[in-house]
Amino acid sequence: MSHDYTAIREEVAKLCAAFPGPYWQAKDKVREYPSEFVAALGEAGYLAALIPEEYGGAGLPLSAAAAILEEIQRQGCNGGAVHAQMYVMGTVLRHGSEEQKARYLPKVATGELRLQAFGVTEPTSGTDTLSLKTVAKKDGDEYVVNGQKLWTSRAEHSDLMILLARTTPRDQAASRTEGLSVFLVDMKEALAAGTLSIRPIDTMMNHATTEIFFDNMRIPAANLIGEEGKGFRYILSGMNAERLLIAAECIGDAKWFIEKASSYAKERVLFGRPIGQNQGVQFPIARAYAQMRAAELLVHDGIAKYEAGENAGAEANMAKMLAAEASWAAGEACIQTHGGFGFAAEYDIERKFRETRLYQVAPISTNMILSYVAEHVLGMPRSY
Amino acid sequence: MSHDYTAIREEVAKLCAAFPGPYWQAKDKVREYPSEFVAALGEAGYLAALIPEEYGGAGLPLSAAAAILEEIQRQGCNGGAVHAQMYVMGTVLRHGSEEQKARYLPKVATGELRLQAFGVTEPTSGTDTLSLKTVAKKDGDEYVVNGQKLWTSRAEHSDLMILLARTTPRDQAASRTEGLSVFLVDMKEALAAGTLSIRPIDTMMNHATTEIFFDNMRIPAANLIGEEGKGFRYILSGMNAERLLIAAECIGDAKWFIEKASSYAKERVLFGRPIGQNQGVQFPIARAYAQMRAAELLVHDGIAKYEAGENAGAEANMAKMLAAEASWAAGEACIQTHGGFGFAAEYDIERKFRETRLYQVAPISTNMILSYVAEHVLGMPRSY
Amino acid sequence: MSHDYTAIREEVAKLCAAFPGPYWQAKDKVREYPSEFVAALGEAGYLAALIPEEYGGAGLPLSAAAAILEEIQRQGCNGGAVHAQMYVMGTVLRHGSEEQKARYLPKVATGELRLQAFGVTEPTSGTDTLSLKTVAKKDGDEYVVNGQKLWTSRAEHSDLMILLARTTPRDQAASRTEGLSVFLVDMKEALAAGTLSIRPIDTMMNHATTEIFFDNMRIPAANLIGEEGKGFRYILSGMNAERLLIAAECIGDAKWFIEKASSYAKERVLFGRPIGQNQGVQFPIARAYAQMRAAELLVHDGIAKYEAGENAGAEANMAKMLAAEASWAAGEACIQTHGGFGFAAEYDIERKFRETRLYQVAPISTNMILSYVAEHVLGMPRSY
Amino acid sequence: MSHDYTAIREEVAKLCAAFPGPYWQAKDKVREYPSEFVAALGEAGYLAALIPEEYGGAGLPLSAAAAILEEIQRQGCNGGAVHAQMYVMGTVLRHGSEEQKARYLPKVATGELRLQAFGVTEPTSGTDTLSLKTVAKKDGDEYVVNGQKLWTSRAEHSDLMILLARTTPRDQAASRTEGLSVFLVDMKEALAAGTLSIRPIDTMMNHATTEIFFDNMRIPAANLIGEEGKGFRYILSGMNAERLLIAAECIGDAKWFIEKASSYAKERVLFGRPIGQNQGVQFPIARAYAQMRAAELLVHDGIAKYEAGENAGAEANMAKMLAAEASWAAGEACIQTHGGFGFAAEYDIERKFRETRLYQVAPISTNMILSYVAEHVLGMPRSY
Repeated sequence: MSHDYTAIREEVAKLCAAFPGPYWQAKDKVREYPSEFVAALGEAGYLAALIPEEYGGAGLPLSAAAAILEEIQRQGCNGGAVHAQMYVMGTVLRHGSEEQKARYLPKVATGELRLQAFGVTEPTSGTDTLSLKTVAKKDGDEYVVNGQKLWTSRAEHSDLMILLARTTPRDQAASRTEGLSVFLVDMKEALAAGTLSIRPIDTMMNHATTEIFFDNMRIPAANLIGEEGKGFRYILSGMNAERLLIAAECIGDAKWFIEKASSYAKERVLFGRPIGQNQGVQFPIARAYAQMRAAELLVHDGIAKYEAGENAGAEANMAKMLAAEASWAAGEACIQTHGGFGFAAEYDIERKFRETRLYQVAPISTNMILSYVAEHVLGMPRSY
Repeated sequence: MSHDYTAIREEVAKLCAAFPGPYWQAKDKVREYPSEFVAALGEAGYLAALIPEEYGGAGLPLSAAAAILEEIQRQGCNGGAVHAQMYVMGTVLRHGSEEQKARYLPKVATGELRLQAFGVTEPTSGTDTLSLKTVAKKDGDEYVVNGQKLWTSRAEHSDLMILLARTTPRDQAASRTEGLSVFLVDMKEALAAGTLSIRPIDTMMNHATTEIFFDNMRIPAANLIGEEGKGFRYILSGMNAERLLIAAECIGDAKWFIEKASSYAKERVLFGRPIGQNQGVQFPIARAYAQMRAAELLVHDGIAKYEAGENAGAEANMAKMLAAEASWAAGEACIQTHGGFGFAAEYDIERKFRETRLYQVAPISTNMILSYVAEHVLGMPRSY
Repeated sequence: MSHDYTAIREEVAKLCAAFPGPYWQAKDKVREYPSEFVAALGEAGYLAALIPEEYGGAGLPLSAAAAILEEIQRQGCNGGAVHAQMYVMGTVLRHGSEEQKARYLPKVATGELRLQAFGVTEPTSGTDTLSLKTVAKKDGDEYVVNGQKLWTSRAEHSDLMILLARTTPRDQAASRTEGLSVFLVDMKEALAAGTLSIRPIDTMMNHATTEIFFDNMRIPAANLIGEEGKGFRYILSGMNAERLLIAAECIGDAKWFIEKASSYAKERVLFGRPIGQNQGVQFPIARAYAQMRAAELLVHDGIAKYEAGENAGAEANMAKMLAAEASWAAGEACIQTHGGFGFAAEYDIERKFRETRLYQVAPISTNMILSYVAEHVLGMPRSY
Repeated sequence: MSHDYTAIREEVAKLCAAFPGPYWQAKDKVREYPSEFVAALGEAGYLAALIPEEYGGAGLPLSAAAAILEEIQRQGCNGGAVHAQMYVMGTVLRHGSEEQKARYLPKVATGELRLQAFGVTEPTSGTDTLSLKTVAKKDGDEYVVNGQKLWTSRAEHSDLMILLARTTPRDQAASRTEGLSVFLVDMKEALAAGTLSIRPIDTMMNHATTEIFFDNMRIPAANLIGEEGKGFRYILSGMNAERLLIAAECIGDAKWFIEKASSYAKERVLFGRPIGQNQGVQFPIARAYAQMRAAELLVHDGIAKYEAGENAGAEANMAKMLAAEASWAAGEACIQTHGGFGFAAEYDIERKFRETRLYQVAPISTNMILSYVAEHVLGMPRSY
């Protein structure tokens, strides 16, 4: 497998060129969803990259999706608005029935249906998914859902949502990890019925994240994905792909910061010479570059394992951690290199700086990754 | 000297309590100047802390001003909107004529005149102040100013500006550091005359910073401060105080972050126990606390030297560097401890995180401080 | 309180000058105890600094002892060989009977009796002192001791040892912290009787540390210090002083490294200029300097609290942590600045580098300190 | 290319098992060359791994040599004693005449001739190779050499030396990089003639490094390698391979430390539970693991480029830097995890800790690598 995808990257870069800094600055200033950018990506077919050709997608491997997202970030755009449309459908693809796939995936592929809301985390659960409290109770051939989700991003810009809810009370479940189920929710319908409400959350970056409330929301039983009670493992099964894709985005961010910082360091003259001649300026950039390159190889390694059908848990987690840290190191070097200009919106740096910070926390925090490595790779006892 | 000022801190805290998170969030969202907060501080006399009693100020020492600013930050407010009103007048106080002092300081003390614009940095000069290009040319009993300043914060909210401009061409100046002069500019007059224009700069935080253009702006010769050509040293003379005060603000920020992070870590329960029970959560907070405490002592040490009339250059610089790094470490720990909540505007953390980052760059960058220490404290060769 | 002690420092420096690099290199090479240096310090009275004048000591405050130890390290000597002689007697002084003090302290003051073995840690207890297993069983007017101690430094060069042993079985003790007692052991006697044996441990640095075995060692009941069962708190009571003194040593180490590194960076010419002109060389040194200065102020702050009779736990712990980290940062900068020469024994740097590393582990590790701060200063739950 | 070499690694591991901790501790204590270990490796053919089969070597690619050296370190042995025998001959192989190759390589392959001295660095040159001062003056069909080399490791355990000396005075050379030539020196002959003398240097680790003096040492002109005056580029040509091999050694060190630290953290019980349950213990180990894995992929990437005949300069340099930093991070985590035991010679940790530190300085320092990346990869101006 090669991670080059030169042609794809060039096309993505060309597309991104139509959405330069001022576009993003304007969106960012009022925290507006970049619908035009999302539409353009959708039309060009990138959002359907991972959907098999039989369902109208491009049928590309994860490495291609990673290349697309990396390039989006590298061009200074905000892939956070779209990455979910690429992989949330994976739950349907891997665990849905033939009928569900045939019904939804083609429309997701064309963009007619936006499936980019992923309702898992709750206010009190955080990363402790098993403690979630949203309940889906069977009632005839429907489920009635009550509860609340948090950090459901792009919910206002999605037609469908993947929802994880408890269908068997915790104390009656066969095991700790059983009793949760996954549903495909028609959000527009539920919004119209008033059983679903969305509260946007204002955040440090333009991330379109929300809090969602379910008040006797009814879902047809036909929208249950896979078996009832097996939802936790379905959700887990998609996590490595998500982490690898977000790691690729971080690599793109890091490259953007490094290019920006290097260019500026070469041009900006202070005290009679380019500031890049100072080791205090050039070393942090060079270091971030090395850090990014090593993290990038780990992303590739994880993707290769994933594509080969091997367990890529360790690599996906470590790649996400190191890539997010590399993008942050690059962001720090970039903002510091630019002095005051780093803080001015028109330079885009401060925007990317705010955006990339999230990836040390989402979709999984650095601490949880270190715990994973300590426990599952190095065999140390669980610490929490 | 004690740095307690318990009574002052309590009063400041009480005042700040009237400006809670939502006030700052609202201002921040639209980058609006916190006029009400500034007014309240002014009325309470805090902005005149450093003005001698004979000119209507409180006549307090630097340590008291530091305590005020630290407390403002510690309460979650944004001292960046007001600190300059406290110390910019220092240039007049130290180097102005008796007449200038008598004419301006009492009105600055009451807040009738806002003197918080400091026109030094230019787009091409950065921290290389000696390379500035704004020219003030003598014309009868006036000076005619042409040029441009950058990062002149609060210019739209100031009546007066301290301006540094070149009065003798560089190649005719007696020495490298001669030929620059300091003026007191009546901004309202110049704005009315159309010879001064201000362009606000949108930045990562609500900092009210601007770019300023001078187009044949005329200043009465009587507004020259001190001797013509000696301006560089006048400006230098105030830098240690400024750095120490900003270091104190960083200490306040660090305390705010640490208190916020500790509280949350105690309360937030995940996986059946408070997250603060995890060393991965509590250690970074504890470490930031230790780092802050050590930096705080250096701030106090620098202030003590300053108040004793000794050269506090080394301490002021190092204190600013370490305090800014401590507040950043605390900010990082705080945002990471809060997970997604750290990024939500309503928690204030992301706002403080954005605000405190600036202090690694302004008023002097970490690299310039390390150069200063290497050269002036440790005797190594100048590196740039 | 001032931490200057200029005269004392000058005297110590003069004394140290008689023990230059080659002396320490020779000792280090064969891990030989620096008896001559210890003797010289003893004769000059420095080891009795903290013993009250009524018992023949200098009656100096902790700050003076700290100045002495800092200066020893700053001169490139190894205070690890002697610091215990300064403070181990503190247990006797604070908790011993009048008779014990009168009997032992004067001889400790003259150096006739060396009291520098501190038998607390055991192989299986580590820092979990309460789990120690060495037992002292009352038998008439004697106690019979069986068990083992580890990391008892300087045991081969000590006449007396402070020993902590269990006198009440854990399950019979009134509380978790009761049941341990402190004894003063006449080591020569026990060695002669064959009930005490010492196994030296070869370590990374010349630290004279040992493992000690007790085989029915008998101690006169008169050598019990304070009350039976209260030993744990007696030992705790001396820890802050010990940590502060060792922190002072680290400050001395840091100063030695910084001076060495700065000098070399100024003189060493590569690529046609002093290497100190490179920010990559000078910045780490400058940063270590700032870090050391801040840590030093925390050491002083902790000592001031200690001398004022206040609880200096937080400051002592944080000062030890930050000072040890500052000396390590300085050591890293120094060894890196010297390139290959940093590793050559004749430059002393590698020796000091090895010696100073210990202080991140002993007498208390960084992790335990962070736990202390998190729990006792910031109120977070205990993590272990 | 795969980096597995499972069979080779297993064989190397088996061989290393005959040289356990106590063997290395004994050697280390008196800084004795591990001749038995070197002999065993030589007999097994590993030292001839890179010599083509036609000259009696194993004809293996660089990746195999890297696997061998990595495994040696991972088993706790000290590859620093032997790595040079593997790659120093590369200069002869790449630039020597057919006659020279035929004459020397077969004997190097069998170990009859040890070619592991590399005389390049001088006391005043450091990494500024072009400033070296050792002169080789043509005199009939001989060259007469005068000068001095530093950090020539294993010189006392080598029969031959690759020597770089100036043959054209700097001011007469056609260009900055011309005028240096490479020679193959018969050290035994020169030692016997008294024109070569070796001064061993005692260092922090058992590295067998020396200082070498040439006093009218005569070399047959036939021992000139390649063309006169082209020596600098010959030396450069071997540097990437050397850096990659040493990076592989660092990866091996990191793995050793991580395995040691993880095992101990699982077993050591304090406060009633394995210390590895503490995030303060397990996180640094887990982090070092991730860091190592990413660096390892960069080593592999650089080797792949090298084996493909591409310019591997960037990868070789960055791989060396990151691998050396990963081994150091792992070493720090390991020594800290072990508490006092980390410093005891019998645990081997302190020995490996001392040994691995060198690789941040040799064969090229971190600063020089950052400069290389900044200048040659990112296009920033040269900083020195």
